[in-house]
Amino acid sequence: MNTRRTRKIMNPKMNRAYHSKKKIKDNKINKDVKTFDSGKLKVIIVGGNEEVGRNMTILEYEDDIVIIDMGIQFPEEDMPGIDFIIPNIEYLKGKEKNIKGVIITHGHLDHIGAIPYLIPTLGNPTIYSAALTLGLIRKRAEEFSDLPEMNLQAVTTDDTLRLGVFKVSFFGVSHNIPASMGIVVDTPLGKVVHSGDFKLDFDGPKRDLPEVEKIANLGKENVLALLSDSTNAPHTGHQISESEIQTNLYNIIRDAHGRTIIGTFSSLLNRLQQIFEAAEKLNKKVLIEGYSMKTNIEIAHQLGYLNFKKSLFITEKQMKEYPDKRIVVCCTGAQGEDRAVLMRIVNKEHKFLKIEKNDTVVFSSSVIPGNERSVQRLKDSLYRLGAEVIHYQMMDVHAGGHAKKEDLKLMINLVKPKYFVPIEGNHSFLHIHGKIAEEAGMNANNIFIADNGQVIEFTKLGGKLTNKRINADYVFVDGLGVGDVSNIVLRDRKQMSDDGMIVAIVTVSAKNGELIHSPDIISRGFVYMKENKELIEKARSKIRQLTKKHNPKTSTNDMYLKNQIRNELGKFLFQETQRRPMVLPVVIEV
Amino acid sequence: MNTRRTRKIMNPKMNRAYHSKKKIKDNKINKDVKTFDSGKLKVIIVGGNEEVGRNMTILEYEDDIVIIDMGIQFPEEDMPGIDFIIPNIEYLKGKEKNIKGVIITHGHLDHIGAIPYLIPTLGNPTIYSAALTLGLIRKRAEEFSDLPEMNLQAVTTDDTLRLGVFKVSFFGVSHNIPASMGIVVDTPLGKVVHSGDFKLDFDGPKRDLPEVEKIANLGKENVLALLSDSTNAPHTGHQISESEIQTNLYNIIRDAHGRTIIGTFSSLLNRLQQIFEAAEKLNKKVLIEGYSMKTNIEIAHQLGYLNFKKSLFITEKQMKEYPDKRIVVCCTGAQGEDRAVLMRIVNKEHKFLKIEKNDTVVFSSSVIPGNERSVQRLKDSLYRLGAEVIHYQMMDVHAGGHAKKEDLKLMINLVKPKYFVPIEGNHSFLHIHGKIAEEAGMNANNIFIADNGQVIEFTKLGGKLTNKRINADYVFVDGLGVGDVSNIVLRDRKQMSDDGMIVAIVTVSAKNGELIHSPDIISRGFVYMKENKELIEKARSKIRQLTKKHNPKTSTNDMYLKNQIRNELGKFLFQETQRRPMVLPVVIEV
Repeated sequence: MNTRRTRKIMNPKMNRAYHSKKKIKDNKINKDVKTFDSGKLKVIIVGGNEEVGRNMTILEYEDDIVIIDMGIQFPEEDMPGIDFIIPNIEYLKGKEKNIKGVIITHGHLDHIGAIPYLIPTLGNPTIYSAALTLGLIRKRAEEFSDLPEMNLQAVTTDDTLRLGVFKVSFFGVSHNIPASMGIVVDTPLGKVVHSGDFKLDFDGPKRDLPEVEKIANLGKENVLALLSDSTNAPHTGHQISESEIQTNLYNIIRDAHGRTIIGTFSSLLNRLQQIFEAAEKLNKKVLIEGYSMKTNIEIAHQLGYLNFKKSLFITEKQMKEYPDKRIVVCCTGAQGEDRAVLMRIVNKEHKFLKIEKNDTVVFSSSVIPGNERSVQRLKDSLYRLGAEVIHYQMMDVHAGGHAKKEDLKLMINLVKPKYFVPIEGNHSFLHIHGKIAEEAGMNANNIFIADNGQVIEFTKLGGKLTNKRINADYVFVDGLGVGDVSNIVLRDRKQMSDDGMIVAIVTVSAKNGELIHSPDIISRGFVYMKENKELIEKARSKIRQLTKKHNPKTSTNDMYLKNQIRNELGKFLFQETQRRPMVLPVVIEV
Repeated sequence: MNTRRTRKIMNPKMNRAYHSKKKIKDNKINKDVKTFDSGKLKVIIVGGNEEVGRNMTILEYEDDIVIIDMGIQFPEEDMPGIDFIIPNIEYLKGKEKNIKGVIITHGHLDHIGAIPYLIPTLGNPTIYSAALTLGLIRKRAEEFSDLPEMNLQAVTTDDTLRLGVFKVSFFGVSHNIPASMGIVVDTPLGKVVHSGDFKLDFDGPKRDLPEVEKIANLGKENVLALLSDSTNAPHTGHQISESEIQTNLYNIIRDAHGRTIIGTFSSLLNRLQQIFEAAEKLNKKVLIEGYSMKTNIEIAHQLGYLNFKKSLFITEKQMKEYPDKRIVVCCTGAQGEDRAVLMRIVNKEHKFLKIEKNDTVVFSSSVIPGNERSVQRLKDSLYRLGAEVIHYQMMDVHAGGHAKKEDLKLMINLVKPKYFVPIEGNHSFLHIHGKIAEEAGMNANNIFIADNGQVIEFTKLGGKLTNKRINADYVFVDGLGVGDVSNIVLRDRKQMSDDGMIVAIVTVSAKNGELIHSPDIISRGFVYMKENKELIEKARSKIRQLTKKHNPKTSTNDMYLKNQIRNELGKFLFQETQRRPMVLPVVIEV
């Protein structure tokens, strides 16, 4: 093995975020962007173009705006304590009445998750999507108590909407949740096509087949621009079909020696459908564990997106009536999430499920970057408890909801756009997707690799990736707070996380500046004080020295002494320990 | 995409560590283990059997001990601020004189990194290894100023050592650093074979070919136990040969439009040799950047492990004399480490290297779990600066130093041990390796999947994985501190990292307990105080209320008031924000 430590990683992206406010002001571009441009179409990818998540795109023509998707992003490792990140809507302030509609491509959280935060502040515009997606949006909204009634309008892929100057139509795509759509926005300057999350799976379940005729017809309609999903652009070849995954899952469930316990996402409805069908054929029974999974299944079933006989399912009590080999458990937690069912089972905190010898635990989703170690630990624990573990390294039960290189090329070849805009992915992915477009025969000048917030403009003369940028800074959600955690707060969290902190309390006489008590020191996360009495005593002496040097007559307040303690004590502790705890001096004059 | 947040992950491993001290005491096994056992051979894997890293194995027969490897482990994500983890040597206290030698398999940090910390406290026993490995050990020791002179003795794979009752011999294995060895310890009860890190690469460079005859001969010698590398056990098939990697690298360097910049580990000496040979053949020049890489190359060259003509290398100044296409830069930083060369280039902090259009940047090592996101960001930044990026997703320049399933099976089939002990890897890997041994025909009862510190005993009657455990708890290195960061300190760091902290300062009269000043509040990493004045003011009122209720006559010290503030203020802040900052009350009586 070759290893190297990566603590205190410089994060170029984060740094950009720290400085981006400044940058925007320096360039004075924010105001430029807000000015009225007659005859201009602006396409602005607000989020999702420098990361995987918080997808949101704005299309604006004069006084009309449509928004596509409003997702959340999960925090990076240098954002401790953050729950998630939502798109920045500063640009839309004052333009609420221009928003003619919000169109949602499908029901995953990185496309719908920010709706409850953003929709009320945008004047509650109507949300258009498939019935299933709206069901999932409605369900998520239930977690927010003071949300106004949302305006939801269901569409099918055969509908057409008129939203201001825009005419909006749809085409079905395959993904790993039913009712995923691509979107065609017909603007005064031509059609802009947004792929949504997609793969081209011609072998999957009938209802989820891509509407390839519609896509191919776009090729005859002089499409102005194609915005296309880059999530899997770095992967060569074709994405595997859902039917192949179905076969793998069927074989695993058939061959299990005891119970089959399948961990997956509650929103991975295709996978659940496949499991139900396999269990049905194999005369096995299914137990569903996990609140969000149960409600998602209900929503999808009511709307006709999930098919099963009610008799397929068993309850906790009925489990005892069946031999282990006939039981399939579907649950959440395949990413190692702490409150999900799998982790609770492993930690022996689950009410009635325990891992037994002969259990086969299947991880039915790929590992999200950043979760590798949590998932590894979960697997270690499962093996320790006697289970067999099956993951895609051993057999492909991988989710694979996104098009790979050859499928992406096919999409470009079918739609034949004049301009190409890779979206949804890290900058690398967009770049690689751009190269794919070149391979597909597109002119490199017509490929726009935009940052979040960077404005793409179209006029009658053509398209341009401008240097104008709207504010696309991170907006952090932490507990009840939205946008109240700044980069300064995060920086402090990181410092305390690395080396802890020290509070140095000095009580001095207001008259002569002399110490009244011996200086007090509290430390947390730095050293274990009981075992480091000598160091703490030395630090106290250091503070006494500094206080003696301090003349209260020359400094009107205690700022000077505080700074002295912060700097000198900090230096001293670094010399002694090579650690840099945060030093908080408290000076009390009495 | 399907996502789900994984903040505050329950870490089963970490939990085990928190509780393991207690567990050991409960079972009273520590003392049992220390008692003298005549005629017994103990094999104890002290580290490396529940993780990748801190490899160390003890073999003990009556009064004689040999140790194999002394490595470091890099911290997990729930160990903020920790530099690394070293093996726990509590068991060896009082047994220093029994240690007859320390044998090192090869020169990577997870096998040599803990030597400077441990060797002085073990009575400075002699370290035996190949000349190259000793050179790397010596180099690492230079970073430690007060280390006593080490006793280093070079061996070749044809040497035999007598260490107490043990006779030790060696066999060469292929890995991705030259001079990697497997070890045969001939004990009074039979031969114990330790594979070291290995792959069976029959097509690699001549000097690094595995000594397969020696390995095959072991099959005739009734080997008692084989301890074998599990790092790649979850991967099926055969590991690729170094010659294949060589071809890939050659093609990349040949086809580069401009400079080739190759990021790798400074210890991945095979990769460097391959780059030098390719550059030589292609009439290109090589610039080496990074201190550790330069010194490693010097050490390996002096000892004859790296071959090149001095004229191959150019300096910073000479770079200008060559067209870009003739320049190859080798540097550190392919894991996204912040202080390594690649990151400094990207952050524009490097003295003379800048990314230019037409540069090809090659990541020539696989990503260590946990580094995925740092590496992704590094790639994003490189693309942003105009470079082409090549990683193993696109072309296989992957390190691949460890045997995969089929090679592992071959090793077992060649050595034909009576007992099999998978080592080096997470519990899952060991388990999967155990299954491989079963497939290779071994009896499941003779396969011992041990935890760190779990004692394996051999007598004339046979082998047994006992329930005895020596202390194998984490020993953390943080700055200058070794073992002074406890789990309490880590827990505090994590809490502050998630939700920050609040210091509440209350100055009360010693006479009547009344407030003298208005309560002071300092917050770090919780909310940005300037923008949350209302919340802070409410918190102040809360403290005032609590102080009023406090009667100094009924409580002899201020502990009660402190606890009240901690609990009530904590509850209040959680209600208001859904965050749980650490609350530190400071009560000053004057």
